[in-house]
Amino acid sequence: MAILEGVPAGVELTSASVAAELARRRLGYGRGARMSFEQDVVEFIGGLRHGLTLGSPVAIRVGNSEWPKWETVMAPDPVDPELLAAQARNAPLTRPRPGHADLAGMQKYGHTDARPILERASARETAARVAVGTVAKALLRQALGVEIVSHVIELGSVAAKPGLLPTPDDFERIDADPLRCLDPDASARMVEEVDAAKKDADTLGGIVEVLAYHVPPGLGSHVQWDRKLDARLATALMSIQAIKGVEIGDAFTQARSRGSVAHDEIINTPDGVRRITDRAGGLEGGMTTGEPLRVRAAMKPISSLNRALQTVDVTTGEAATAINQRSDVCAVPAAAVVAEAMVALVLAEAALEKFGGDSVPEIRRNLAGYLDNLVIR
Amino acid sequence: MAILEGVPAGVELTSASVAAELARRRLGYGRGARMSFEQDVVEFIGGLRHGLTLGSPVAIRVGNSEWPKWETVMAPDPVDPELLAAQARNAPLTRPRPGHADLAGMQKYGHTDARPILERASARETAARVAVGTVAKALLRQALGVEIVSHVIELGSVAAKPGLLPTPDDFERIDADPLRCLDPDASARMVEEVDAAKKDADTLGGIVEVLAYHVPPGLGSHVQWDRKLDARLATALMSIQAIKGVEIGDAFTQARSRGSVAHDEIINTPDGVRRITDRAGGLEGGMTTGEPLRVRAAMKPISSLNRALQTVDVTTGEAATAINQRSDVCAVPAAAVVAEAMVALVLAEAALEKFGGDSVPEIRRNLAGYLDNLVIR
Amino acid sequence: MAILEGVPAGVELTSASVAAELARRRLGYGRGARMSFEQDVVEFIGGLRHGLTLGSPVAIRVGNSEWPKWETVMAPDPVDPELLAAQARNAPLTRPRPGHADLAGMQKYGHTDARPILERASARETAARVAVGTVAKALLRQALGVEIVSHVIELGSVAAKPGLLPTPDDFERIDADPLRCLDPDASARMVEEVDAAKKDADTLGGIVEVLAYHVPPGLGSHVQWDRKLDARLATALMSIQAIKGVEIGDAFTQARSRGSVAHDEIINTPDGVRRITDRAGGLEGGMTTGEPLRVRAAMKPISSLNRALQTVDVTTGEAATAINQRSDVCAVPAAAVVAEAMVALVLAEAALEKFGGDSVPEIRRNLAGYLDNLVIR
Amino acid sequence: MAILEGVPAGVELTSASVAAELARRRLGYGRGARMSFEQDVVEFIGGLRHGLTLGSPVAIRVGNSEWPKWETVMAPDPVDPELLAAQARNAPLTRPRPGHADLAGMQKYGHTDARPILERASARETAARVAVGTVAKALLRQALGVEIVSHVIELGSVAAKPGLLPTPDDFERIDADPLRCLDPDASARMVEEVDAAKKDADTLGGIVEVLAYHVPPGLGSHVQWDRKLDARLATALMSIQAIKGVEIGDAFTQARSRGSVAHDEIINTPDGVRRITDRAGGLEGGMTTGEPLRVRAAMKPISSLNRALQTVDVTTGEAATAINQRSDVCAVPAAAVVAEAMVALVLAEAALEKFGGDSVPEIRRNLAGYLDNLVIR
Repeated sequence: MAILEGVPAGVELTSASVAAELARRRLGYGRGARMSFEQDVVEFIGGLRHGLTLGSPVAIRVGNSEWPKWETVMAPDPVDPELLAAQARNAPLTRPRPGHADLAGMQKYGHTDARPILERASARETAARVAVGTVAKALLRQALGVEIVSHVIELGSVAAKPGLLPTPDDFERIDADPLRCLDPDASARMVEEVDAAKKDADTLGGIVEVLAYHVPPGLGSHVQWDRKLDARLATALMSIQAIKGVEIGDAFTQARSRGSVAHDEIINTPDGVRRITDRAGGLEGGMTTGEPLRVRAAMKPISSLNRALQTVDVTTGEAATAINQRSDVCAVPAAAVVAEAMVALVLAEAALEKFGGDSVPEIRRNLAGYLDNLVIR
Repeated sequence: MAILEGVPAGVELTSASVAAELARRRLGYGRGARMSFEQDVVEFIGGLRHGLTLGSPVAIRVGNSEWPKWETVMAPDPVDPELLAAQARNAPLTRPRPGHADLAGMQKYGHTDARPILERASARETAARVAVGTVAKALLRQALGVEIVSHVIELGSVAAKPGLLPTPDDFERIDADPLRCLDPDASARMVEEVDAAKKDADTLGGIVEVLAYHVPPGLGSHVQWDRKLDARLATALMSIQAIKGVEIGDAFTQARSRGSVAHDEIINTPDGVRRITDRAGGLEGGMTTGEPLRVRAAMKPISSLNRALQTVDVTTGEAATAINQRSDVCAVPAAAVVAEAMVALVLAEAALEKFGGDSVPEIRRNLAGYLDNLVIR
Repeated sequence: MAILEGVPAGVELTSASVAAELARRRLGYGRGARMSFEQDVVEFIGGLRHGLTLGSPVAIRVGNSEWPKWETVMAPDPVDPELLAAQARNAPLTRPRPGHADLAGMQKYGHTDARPILERASARETAARVAVGTVAKALLRQALGVEIVSHVIELGSVAAKPGLLPTPDDFERIDADPLRCLDPDASARMVEEVDAAKKDADTLGGIVEVLAYHVPPGLGSHVQWDRKLDARLATALMSIQAIKGVEIGDAFTQARSRGSVAHDEIINTPDGVRRITDRAGGLEGGMTTGEPLRVRAAMKPISSLNRALQTVDVTTGEAATAINQRSDVCAVPAAAVVAEAMVALVLAEAALEKFGGDSVPEIRRNLAGYLDNLVIR
Repeated sequence: MAILEGVPAGVELTSASVAAELARRRLGYGRGARMSFEQDVVEFIGGLRHGLTLGSPVAIRVGNSEWPKWETVMAPDPVDPELLAAQARNAPLTRPRPGHADLAGMQKYGHTDARPILERASARETAARVAVGTVAKALLRQALGVEIVSHVIELGSVAAKPGLLPTPDDFERIDADPLRCLDPDASARMVEEVDAAKKDADTLGGIVEVLAYHVPPGLGSHVQWDRKLDARLATALMSIQAIKGVEIGDAFTQARSRGSVAHDEIINTPDGVRRITDRAGGLEGGMTTGEPLRVRAAMKPISSLNRALQTVDVTTGEAATAINQRSDVCAVPAAAVVAEAMVALVLAEAALEKFGGDSVPEIRRNLAGYLDNLVIR
C-alpha cells in the first residue's frame, strides 16, 4: 500500500503498467523460490479515473498472493489465543539475525519478538517503491521526455567492462539478461559466481547504475544543502534495503584522480551547449546539467544466509544461532529496478518544483518556455 | 549566517568553541593563501544567554574579514553605476567553469553573470555548517555522551593503512597531522602528492571517514524510507560541496564480498550485547546498533584549477577558457571537519526524535530510562 | 484509505473501535438518506498485529458499501467507451456548483468535467480523518490519559446556553442527543431549525467546540511560528470541509473585551498550580497550560442545496443552474466528531515531539519523569 | 534575524522598502513609549545584489536600537558574575504573567527565570515576519500583480461599518488613520475607547481584515488537508502573537446563515467568469477563486497590564502579583500589518507551487500560459 502525493492531472497510467514494473522487480538470476510463487496483485485505490491521473494523491495497493498463509499470524485484530498457539509460524522469533534490523528494532520499539520488525524491514516493501515509481516514470516520460534505464555493473567479485553505458534502446536487452548486465561476458561470469555462492550456502552483493536521459538542465539547486539534487538522490538510494553506498557518476574513482581529468569541459555544438565528457554524472552544484544523469548504488550481500550466524537469544541472553529465513543468493538485478524507481521519484519531485503545473499540458508548456528562454542553450 | 531550530535548553556553548571548530575547518596541507588571510568572526545572534542555550533557535553569524573588499561588488542594495563601473571585480563572469554550479545555475535562475551563482555555491558556506555543527556536537556530548572524530583515509592516489580506526583519544593527534591522517607514513606520502599536484597546477580529491562513539542503539528507524538513519546521513554528507560519494562502513568493498564475511555476529558480554566486528558501520536496518557509527565520503578534486579548462562564453556562445578563481590544491582535511558537523546534525536530530525533551536534563533522563529498560542490553 | 506515520508501538486498537468512531461521524439530525445506506467497512492494511500497533505506519482502508454503483464511472483503469456511454452517471458535470471546489479545481487541474474534483473534495474524505484520529485518540488516552470530547454550540441561529462545558463524563449523553448539543432546550430548537430549513430546501451551518482534558503543560512551543500549538490546531480544523473559522477558547468574544477580564490568573492549590478561569482555552504562548484545551470551529451552511444556484456551463460559457447533488440539511454534529479527530492528531504529534518514545511504556515513563521534575507543578 | 528560503531571482527590493514596512508595524494609536524610542535597523545579510534577489535564501537582520541596554543581561556568552549581579535588569523573573508564555515555557524548558521565555515570545519577533513579508509582497506584486491591503474592523467594543472593503487605492488613507480603520466615525470612537482603557490601566484587542487583490484562481488545492489554502492561512495568522481566532470571509456570521444566502453565484461577464458576491472570501475548496481573498484575525487584549494580576512565584510557590512589563494599550493596527505579511508569505509559497519558476520572468510566463489556457476564464 503506497500513496504518492503531488501527482499532476493527466498522466496516462494503467494497473497493467504498474504490474509490469513489479514483474521487473522479480527479475534476476539467484532469487529464491519465493519470487516465483509470490504474486503481486495491483489495485489503484485512488487518484486515477479511466487511465488518467486526476491531480489527487495516487494510492496503490500491492497485494501478495502469499498473504492467506499469514492471515492469522499477522492479523491486525486480536486473535483467539488457542488458534494462535496452534500456529507454528506464530512462535516468537527471539534470536535476532546479524545484518538485519531485528536487534536494534526490538530494542527501539520494546519488542521481545523480532517478527514485528522483520515484516516491516523486509525488502517486500520495495514493491511499494516500484509501484509509485511507475507513476513518477510515466509523469517524467509524458511531461518531460525523460527516460530511465538501469543495469548491474558489479556482482560479487565480477565487474562489467568499464564505460559501457546503456541507453533507453538497451532497455529490453538488459531485462532479458539473467543479471540485467549489459556486458555478456561479465554476465556469464556473474552466473557462475551466483552458482558458486549458492553451493556454499552463501550470498552476494553488487553495484548497480541508473541513468536518466533527456533531463533538462537546472533541476535541483545549489542554494541550499537540502535542495541539492545529488543529496536528494543519495537519500533516496541509500534508503533502499541493503544499499549501503551511493556515488554520483564514478565518484570514488574520481576522488583518486586529479582535477585536470575529473571535470567535463563545456563546448558549443549545433545542438546547443554540451559537455565533452560526463564524469560528473550529469550533476554540477547539485543541479542537473542536461547531460545524462548517472548514479550508482552499492548493495551489501544478502544478510539472510542459509548458514548459521552467531547471535543471542533476547529472552535468555544465551548464545544462539540466528533465526533462518528462506533466502535468495543475490538480489542485485532487482535492486537496480528499485533504484530506477527512487531516481524517478526524486526527478519527478524536482521537476515539479522547477516547472510547477498541475496537469501534464501545463508542465510541458512551462518546460518549453524555460528551454526557449535559457540564457544559453 | 545560520539558524539551527529545535535546540533544547541548557546546552553549554560559547562563541569561542564555535570559533575553535571554524579554525579546524581551515586545517590541512594544500590550502591556498585565502585560508590564512580570511578570518571567521563568530557572533551569536540568538538562542543563547550567558553560555547556555535557551530552547529557541540558535542563530550564528560568521563574518568574513575579507568582506570589505566585496562590499560594493556584492552590495545588497543598489549601487551608483559609476562606482560599480570603476570596480574591476564587478565585471560580469560570463565564462562558466566546468565542475561548478556556474552554468546550470545561470540557466536555472536566468543570470548572464556567474557571480550570483558562485558566491552561493562556494564552499565558504561550509562555515555555516561547522558553526551549527558545533551546537549539535555540544548537545550530543552533554546530553548523550556521544563523541565524534574524523580522519582522511585517502588523498589522491595515496591510501592510509586499512582498518586504522581513530577513537576520541586520537582527536588532537589527527588535527596536528598536516593532512588529518592517522597513518604517519601515508601522511608523508600525501604531502608529496600535494606538492606534486601543486607543481602541475593541478588539484586533488580524497576520501574521509567520520566515526561517532557511544551512540545509543535505536536512533533512526526501519519503518519508513525517510527515517532510515543511513539515508539521512547520505543526504547530509552528499550535500557538502564536492562530495560525490557516500558509504556506510566500507560498503563498496562489502558489495564485492560474500555474505558470510560481511555481517557482524552478535554476542553477549559482561558489558552487554555487542558485535564481534563493525562491518556495518554501526547501522542495521537504518538504525544505530550501539557500535561505533562509521561513514565515509568521497570528495572530487577541486574544480577551480590553476589551468585553463575549455568552456563557452554565455553572452557570445563562443569557445573560451573558464574564469579562474584562486584555488587550493586540496581541501580534503577540511571536508572531514565539515563531515563531522553534518553527522552531528543528523545524530542530534535523530536523538531528539527518539528521546524528545526540551532541556539537557530531560533528554538525559529519557535516555537513562530507555537504556535501563531495553529488552536486552 | 489513510496512512498514519509515526505511531509508537504498543497502542491497543481494533477495527471495531475505528468502526465505532466512524459510526459517530454519521450522527446528527439533518443528514440525508445517504448516511443510512452508505456503510463504512474498516480494514487495517498495516501497522497492527493482534490488536497492538507495531511502530510502523498504520494504514487503514475505509470501504464504502456504495462503491459498486460507481465501479465503472470511477474505474481507475480505462473502460470500454460503449460501456461508459451507457452509464448516465458518467455524463460530464460541466456546471460547477457555487460554494464548492468545482470551478477553481477545474481551472487549476484543467478538467472540463467537475467529477474528478468533487469526488476528492467530498466530505467523504473525513472518514479517513476519523479513522486515523481513532489511532491518535487511543495513543493519547493510553500513553497520556488525555480524553477528548466535542459538542455543538450553535446551529443556524440557535445557540446553546453559553459556558456549558462538557466533560468526558458527558460523552455518551452528547452522542445520544440528536444534534450532539449539551443543552436540551437548545437542542429542541435546533431540531425545529433543521426542520424549517428542510422545508425550504435550504441548509444550515453552525459552530462546534472540542475540549481535551488532562493535557500536560508544555505541548507546542512559543519559539517558532510553526511550532505554536494554536497555529497547528488552526490549520487542522480549518482543513475540514466547510470549516471556515477557528477560535481558541472564545477568541472573537475576547477580542471585544478588556485585558483585565480576558486572562486567567494563576494560583497554587493542593493539586498544583492552576488557573482560576480558562478563558485562554488552555493555551498560552502557543503551549498547553495544563488546563482543558478548548477550540471552536465555524462551519458554513452546506453548499449542495436542493434549490437552483446560478452558475456557468464551462463548455459553452452560457448561464446555467448548478448541478445538484443529494444533500444533507446540516452536518454540524458530524463535523464536531471530525474536529475531535483533528485535535487528537495535533495533540498526539505534539506529545511525541515533547516526550519522544517509540512505545507506550517509553512515552509514559518520559511523561512521568517530566511531571516529577517541573520547576513548579 | 530572519531567513526566507525559496525566493526566486529577479525580485526588486531595497533595505529602504523593508524599513518602510517595519515602520508601518509601529503604527497605531495606543502604543506605548517603546514604539517611539526603539528603532529598527535593517541589514540584508544575503540573497540580494544591487537591489535584486539572486535565487538564494534572503537573510535579513533587523537590529534594535535599544539592544545596548540589554547587552550584558542578554549576552550570549558567559558574563563575569559580578558584572551581572550589578545589573538590576538581570534579576530573575520568577512571577509568570497570566496570558503570556511565561509559565508554560518555564515548565517546558526547565527555566526558573521567565526572561528566556518572554524575550523569545515577545511580539518583537513580528519584526522578522514583516521583514520577510516585504520580500513576499514584492514577489507577488512583480510576478503576479497581487496587491495586499489590511484594515482594522473592530477595536474593543467598537466596530467599523460592516461591508466596507478597502482596495489597494485606500492603502495610504488607511495608514494615515490613527487606528488604520476605513470608517472615520468608527475610528473616532476607537480613539475614545483607547483613551478610556488607558485611563483604567487596561488593554484592548480587536479584529483585523486582510484582502489580497488580483490573485489568480487555483492557488492551494482541495486534494489534501495540508494543501488547502484556507488551512495554511489559518496557521499563518494564528501563529501571530495574541491572535486567537481566524475566519475566512465572515465565517462566524455565515455559520449562522442559511445556505441559500451563504454562497457566491457564478456568472459570465465580458471580463470572464466572476462571482456576484464574495462571501467565501475568495476561497472555495481550499483554492483561490480569482475573487479578492479576504481573511480576518481576532486579537485578544494585550496581556501585559498596568494593573496587578494574580500569580505564583515559581521559586517559593507563594501567591504573588505578576511581573509587570511596560505595555501598550492596544496593538491591533500593527497586528493588521503583521497579518498582511503572513498572508503574503502564504500566497507567495502557493504561487511558487502552482507556477514553479526560479526567476520573475519565468513565473510571469508560466502564469500567462496558465491564464491563457484556462478551461474557462
